[in-house]
Amino acid sequence: MRNILIIGAGRSATSLIRYLLDKSEKENLFITIGDISIQSAQKFTTGHPNARGIMLDVFNDVQRKEAVENSDLVISMLPARYHIEVARDCIEFGKHMVTASYISNEMQALNHKAESKGLVFMNEIGLDPGVDHMSAMQVIDRIRAKGGKMLLFESFCGGLIAPESDNNLWNYKFTWNPRNVVLAGQGGAAEFIQEGKYKYIPYHRLFRRTEFINIEDYGRFEVYANRNSLKYQSIYGLDKILTLYRGTIRRVGFSRAWNMFVQLGMTDDSYTIPDSENMTYREFVNLFLPYSPSDSVELKLRHALKMDQDDLMWDKLEDLDIFTKEKTLGIKDSTPAMGLQKILEDKWTLAPEDKDMIVMYHKFGYELDGKQYQIDSHMTLIGEDQTHTAMAKTVGLPVAIAALKILNEEITTPGVQLPIAKEVYEPILKELAENGVIFHEEEVKYLGYNPDNMH
Amino acid sequence: MRNILIIGAGRSATSLIRYLLDKSEKENLFITIGDISIQSAQKFTTGHPNARGIMLDVFNDVQRKEAVENSDLVISMLPARYHIEVARDCIEFGKHMVTASYISNEMQALNHKAESKGLVFMNEIGLDPGVDHMSAMQVIDRIRAKGGKMLLFESFCGGLIAPESDNNLWNYKFTWNPRNVVLAGQGGAAEFIQEGKYKYIPYHRLFRRTEFINIEDYGRFEVYANRNSLKYQSIYGLDKILTLYRGTIRRVGFSRAWNMFVQLGMTDDSYTIPDSENMTYREFVNLFLPYSPSDSVELKLRHALKMDQDDLMWDKLEDLDIFTKEKTLGIKDSTPAMGLQKILEDKWTLAPEDKDMIVMYHKFGYELDGKQYQIDSHMTLIGEDQTHTAMAKTVGLPVAIAALKILNEEITTPGVQLPIAKEVYEPILKELAENGVIFHEEEVKYLGYNPDNMH
Repeated sequence: MRNILIIGAGRSATSLIRYLLDKSEKENLFITIGDISIQSAQKFTTGHPNARGIMLDVFNDVQRKEAVENSDLVISMLPARYHIEVARDCIEFGKHMVTASYISNEMQALNHKAESKGLVFMNEIGLDPGVDHMSAMQVIDRIRAKGGKMLLFESFCGGLIAPESDNNLWNYKFTWNPRNVVLAGQGGAAEFIQEGKYKYIPYHRLFRRTEFINIEDYGRFEVYANRNSLKYQSIYGLDKILTLYRGTIRRVGFSRAWNMFVQLGMTDDSYTIPDSENMTYREFVNLFLPYSPSDSVELKLRHALKMDQDDLMWDKLEDLDIFTKEKTLGIKDSTPAMGLQKILEDKWTLAPEDKDMIVMYHKFGYELDGKQYQIDSHMTLIGEDQTHTAMAKTVGLPVAIAALKILNEEITTPGVQLPIAKEVYEPILKELAENGVIFHEEEVKYLGYNPDNMH
Repeated sequence: MRNILIIGAGRSATSLIRYLLDKSEKENLFITIGDISIQSAQKFTTGHPNARGIMLDVFNDVQRKEAVENSDLVISMLPARYHIEVARDCIEFGKHMVTASYISNEMQALNHKAESKGLVFMNEIGLDPGVDHMSAMQVIDRIRAKGGKMLLFESFCGGLIAPESDNNLWNYKFTWNPRNVVLAGQGGAAEFIQEGKYKYIPYHRLFRRTEFINIEDYGRFEVYANRNSLKYQSIYGLDKILTLYRGTIRRVGFSRAWNMFVQLGMTDDSYTIPDSENMTYREFVNLFLPYSPSDSVELKLRHALKMDQDDLMWDKLEDLDIFTKEKTLGIKDSTPAMGLQKILEDKWTLAPEDKDMIVMYHKFGYELDGKQYQIDSHMTLIGEDQTHTAMAKTVGLPVAIAALKILNEEITTPGVQLPIAKEVYEPILKELAENGVIFHEEEVKYLGYNPDNMH
């Protein structure tokens, strides 16, 4: 038996665990699921002969080290900041490790130790980062193999509500961590390159400089820029590319409406509000508007945002009940962002029958033999239900597939890795496709942003 | 002879030094001016029998300790972050200390040591902070002494260009540290109280929620909110006040125009721009605008800011030459804020004959015997020339006056202080008035923000 330890039995672990349990007999796997809640750990394993759930507190050194020592490979599905202790144990006991998180500086610092012990530490192998790396590098490597020179790479991803469950005016619900949605785009200007020119968008303009994309069968979406599109420029080998842009996908109209909260200052997470616990939604909104003894919160907000009387954005606000005196935040020492999250959760939480959807879209522009070409590639996936969501599948399946391929010595390059090598992405993308995570490619006319070559 | 050590012979030290030299014979003072540049240190002292300039590197422990030990009182005019080593030496050698800077946590931590040694560490005794504390507390204490209850306190200050030198479209020039002007308002939402309601303004809205004030002989000014109006609420004893608001004064129209830079993201100081050294002003502006192969930087900017063809703000931009291809930033690894500062310095630097102006304005609303009253108090001062600027006078004179009064044991309360006690502000304000720093008071109708008591 090969022992796999999965730490963290949260929402993103469902499809990961199902995949490994399904393979456990044939592949001789025994799965231990460790979580701070024994109930969470055991809910996936009940009755399965090749699995057990255990209580595991990652801050308990004895418990954690024992669990790591007894495994052959460790999958950490914890929040990224908790990986590092587990990673150090994996070095100590000589175990492989897989995470879906960005490589932290602390994790990167373990590279030499992992290499020298022949251990594979595979990271960034969830959806985004993960499936995006693999599906992009597959096409980029193919273009290069035939002698093409990359001109443009744009990559977009979004976790959305499935069309059949899309029943609010925002065309959005929380299918993932709501806090990340409220804070999205903060912390610095968005940075990217268009036609060789660096471009910057400050946070307070981010949701007003969107682009549109069309996806067959699903219609039009919009994209706002991610903070750092240039992060993978060197890693992907795109140092001389003309256009490099990464973004987040939303349904059309979301960003313009979300911008209202940004403009008012409601997404700020840097200070706390006095007496927030008993504050009504209406009082919360009024914090961000000038004082008036007579004018209503409604009119002050319309004026502050210069909103016409018949603007649909108004209905979006009313849909959230933000002007009510009947509901209170109920959060002590709330920041504006925490208060806004509470208001949104009332309306954007998934109903039991709701399904989620993942959309990923890449554009690859390139030059070959003096001619310019473009390949667009997209993937959409709708969740089965609220256990096996599209998010859990697209995050968990690549993690699970990678873990098994490491155990089976199909993925062998040691060190702190991300999935950009052919030996990694080819077999994983193939198996993802067999599980319904399928990219559709089409050749389109390359336009770039300067089709007439003007300056 | 009593020895006064002044560390830092910058632009704000001129009137401070002149005051002390003028008094030196009568008061038996010997003034040592220490600066990293011996030329700067000596330019104020040449030929004066009661003064000398020395080279002093505050990072040289031996030099600094010797200079402190040989003095009776130390005035630090260094940037605030350099005070602490000097302050520790003052504790060690038992010397009084005066600064015009905000009390840092490190400085505050020396309070008990200063108290136990009977040393006065007087801080925040420049203009703002300084003259604002004193002129406000004088009126607040007077209102309280006759049994009044404070309802409203608003306090505004601005360093501006004198009317006779006001000859650009922005009605503004740099009369003080340009970097602070470019970064003003950053780092968090502005927070204040109006009629008992907390109010917050995010940075990107700060310059669009201004108030107007009128000052006799000088006309209309505008005010934007300072970041933290509540900082002195407890210190001033205003815990139950209904309205508390502090702000920065500019000439009318400045804020609306400045907001263009904020909106574009040009005041961001958090990232550096590749190849900034050889970048033209035009290329710099284009960083913050969408890519286009054909549209001009001018039209893209007009569109981004939704600016009408005949908007005067356009002329303000052109006045700065920001669309030129002829000038380059010339700064390596420039942030947007550094680049913008360079562009502004071309046009907003004082000409040799230019004079500056300080404006301070307070509003005090209070209730007495069931009736409501308001006192407005303002001070304006125009600089003599570019050595004895209004800024140097209003910063330096209170520092100098306080230093002498500490030596003469007229100000005696030991510990880390700010000038809010009557024993401090009464004699200093009196002497400031003799030097032309005069507050004019008038009784006005108290309106507050809710004159009809509506809710």
